[in-house]
Amino acid sequence: MIVVQKYGGSSVADTDRIIKVAERITAAKRAGNDVVVVVSAMGKSTDRLTQQALEIAAVPPARELDMLLTAGERISMALLAMAIGEEGFTARSFTGSQAGIITDAAHGKARIIDITPGRITDALAEGHIVIVAGFQGVSRESKDITTLGRGGSDTTAVALAGALDADLCEIYTDVDGVYTADPRLAPKARRLEAVTHEEMLELAASGAKVLQVRAVEYARNHGVRLHVRSSFSHQDGTWVEKDGTMEQAIISGVAHDTSEGKLVVRGVPDKPGVAARIFTGLADANINVDMIVQNVSADGTTDVSFTVPVADGPRALALLEELRAEVGLGEIVFDDDIAKVSLVGAGMKTHPGVAATMFAALSAAGVNIEMISTSTIRVSVIVRREHVERAVQAVHDAFELDGEQTAVVR
Amino acid sequence: MIVVQKYGGSSVADTDRIIKVAERITAAKRAGNDVVVVVSAMGKSTDRLTQQALEIAAVPPARELDMLLTAGERISMALLAMAIGEEGFTARSFTGSQAGIITDAAHGKARIIDITPGRITDALAEGHIVIVAGFQGVSRESKDITTLGRGGSDTTAVALAGALDADLCEIYTDVDGVYTADPRLAPKARRLEAVTHEEMLELAASGAKVLQVRAVEYARNHGVRLHVRSSFSHQDGTWVEKDGTMEQAIISGVAHDTSEGKLVVRGVPDKPGVAARIFTGLADANINVDMIVQNVSADGTTDVSFTVPVADGPRALALLEELRAEVGLGEIVFDDDIAKVSLVGAGMKTHPGVAATMFAALSAAGVNIEMISTSTIRVSVIVRREHVERAVQAVHDAFELDGEQTAVVR
Repeated sequence: MIVVQKYGGSSVADTDRIIKVAERITAAKRAGNDVVVVVSAMGKSTDRLTQQALEIAAVPPARELDMLLTAGERISMALLAMAIGEEGFTARSFTGSQAGIITDAAHGKARIIDITPGRITDALAEGHIVIVAGFQGVSRESKDITTLGRGGSDTTAVALAGALDADLCEIYTDVDGVYTADPRLAPKARRLEAVTHEEMLELAASGAKVLQVRAVEYARNHGVRLHVRSSFSHQDGTWVEKDGTMEQAIISGVAHDTSEGKLVVRGVPDKPGVAARIFTGLADANINVDMIVQNVSADGTTDVSFTVPVADGPRALALLEELRAEVGLGEIVFDDDIAKVSLVGAGMKTHPGVAATMFAALSAAGVNIEMISTSTIRVSVIVRREHVERAVQAVHDAFELDGEQTAVVR
Repeated sequence: MIVVQKYGGSSVADTDRIIKVAERITAAKRAGNDVVVVVSAMGKSTDRLTQQALEIAAVPPARELDMLLTAGERISMALLAMAIGEEGFTARSFTGSQAGIITDAAHGKARIIDITPGRITDALAEGHIVIVAGFQGVSRESKDITTLGRGGSDTTAVALAGALDADLCEIYTDVDGVYTADPRLAPKARRLEAVTHEEMLELAASGAKVLQVRAVEYARNHGVRLHVRSSFSHQDGTWVEKDGTMEQAIISGVAHDTSEGKLVVRGVPDKPGVAARIFTGLADANINVDMIVQNVSADGTTDVSFTVPVADGPRALALLEELRAEVGLGEIVFDDDIAKVSLVGAGMKTHPGVAATMFAALSAAGVNIEMISTSTIRVSVIVRREHVERAVQAVHDAFELDGEQTAVVR
């Protein structure tokens, strides 16, 4: 069967770890599989390259930044191919372009629009282990090198698994699976044996960093079976599959996210088109708005609150100041001292009282709720950042998510 | 006019130097030229990557070593493009493959067999400065990434200048031109204002490291005009051109080379086919033989001496031991404690007594000559390595090559 394995930067941080990863890869090959490996850049090398770029230009040209950053995977994949050679197998490394990862031209955040894996299937047919550079592709229009954005290697792996009709896509990382909460905040967090694509999507979108949202979306849309596991152990991790085959937990877990800030716009005229004007402006500026909350209006105006990435806060604020006169806004406040805590579970909508239990637990823990937003399988609240650990633990306890084993995190 | 500029690793060793180089490049663009830049990897980065490969495999697979090493130029060229952007111009960087550098499949020492610079000419037409990764190409057969071997960036630059019909190819390096001798050995060495392609070829082949032999061969065969100069000053360097336009110095300079060892094979049967057997064997093993000297035979046998790169000495010795019984060889001695000193000059053949003057100068300096080999524009001798400095100075003095200025070497 065809297996796609993805190794993140911490799994290939130095030559010793690369050799360990090669042992794991060749074990899968020895077991009779066709193996395709997607690899990230070594350790912090992408950060180092970015730093060099910023020494030269405050805003490096996007095309050249992509050219620069893709050097990282080129290094890790070539070294990994050498280590596989030492294990007595042959490996062929391919850049995103060589592997047929065709993207749009949006440098730095390109989307895969096609995969033409002819060279991969040829190399597999010749008995080689195939290594593909994660995170990168080539633009269909310009033939320029593109990157898929941070964490894009997950997307590369899942997309390749889909294109190759692989039986399994293993995501190797530095934790041993998906947990009911971040074990650093909730030490008794339990590893989930299995979650549905939809639950994983909500967990990832709510701040569980173990998988990228886009990769999960792709896996869901193409029915790719994922196994998220540690590259430092041989234990099973967490399976991400279509529903039906797995435990039907009501609650999958508690996720948190401290990367966003809250914008509150007071005195928004309660008439058609105002909200659209605000959020179209933000979208045009490529500012990713997450939670949006608007209450019923009182005196003909209302307050609109939403969250944006902390880094985009100043830009969003400037944009809203421009709109203030045009559409008649009141006070605008940006607050980056917040955290989002989310409860995720596919069984949630059929079990009334889940949100109430969560709010009661937070209240009992002395955590004030500043915003609330819900979907069919998720309840998210905004709290003070200093309360995030207490909030995660309180919710985790309230839903009795504790496991018997201590989480393995490295 | 079209100008090709090549910058070596020391010229782009860190981000500060990259910014300096960008200033020089944009000055050429500002002066109205179409500028194509060929760039090497930053400083010692190729050495560092090689070291990482050797930590994993004693003999890394050649295809993957090429994949690894080409990451170096990808980094330097992208950073350089960003620095040019800061100067108010746009630059487009291209890998060897994107630039249409088509090679054979000999990983690690590929030869350029074709250049299809469509993307380069398009980018120039759009007003961009073009940056091309030196030292690399793509195999016509396998579509795999190849490298041209150490110093291959010179070859990339000269070949591109030929393919683009460039008016000039500037080779920027850490010395300010080609000297009558290595200024570290002969402090009063004089910078040559101009040499012919043929003289430069002999100088390069004789150990003057400022240009690669293959690059000079290419320049000679395609009539590319070169300007070898320092990236740390704005002085003119040395022009390398077809003869006719330049000073007709009898003697261009004194070169030396300490990278070779001497093999002496005694008691070689003086009959047809024996020498051929020896040198075919060495060629098949890919050992590059340089000077070959064989004297008239005495008692039906003769001594054959030749030089090979020091690193290939043990392999050559083993090969000759295998041949010993087959063709009946006598004693075989390898001596790596030698140096080659060469006197080069296009006017040499029409000026009798040049070799005699050289030998007399060496004798007067107490330097023993162990081997002699001559071409129409070069006389090379092998001496003890400890005598190399004294030999270079003696020959330099004898031909009054001293200049008035002290060489600038950085």
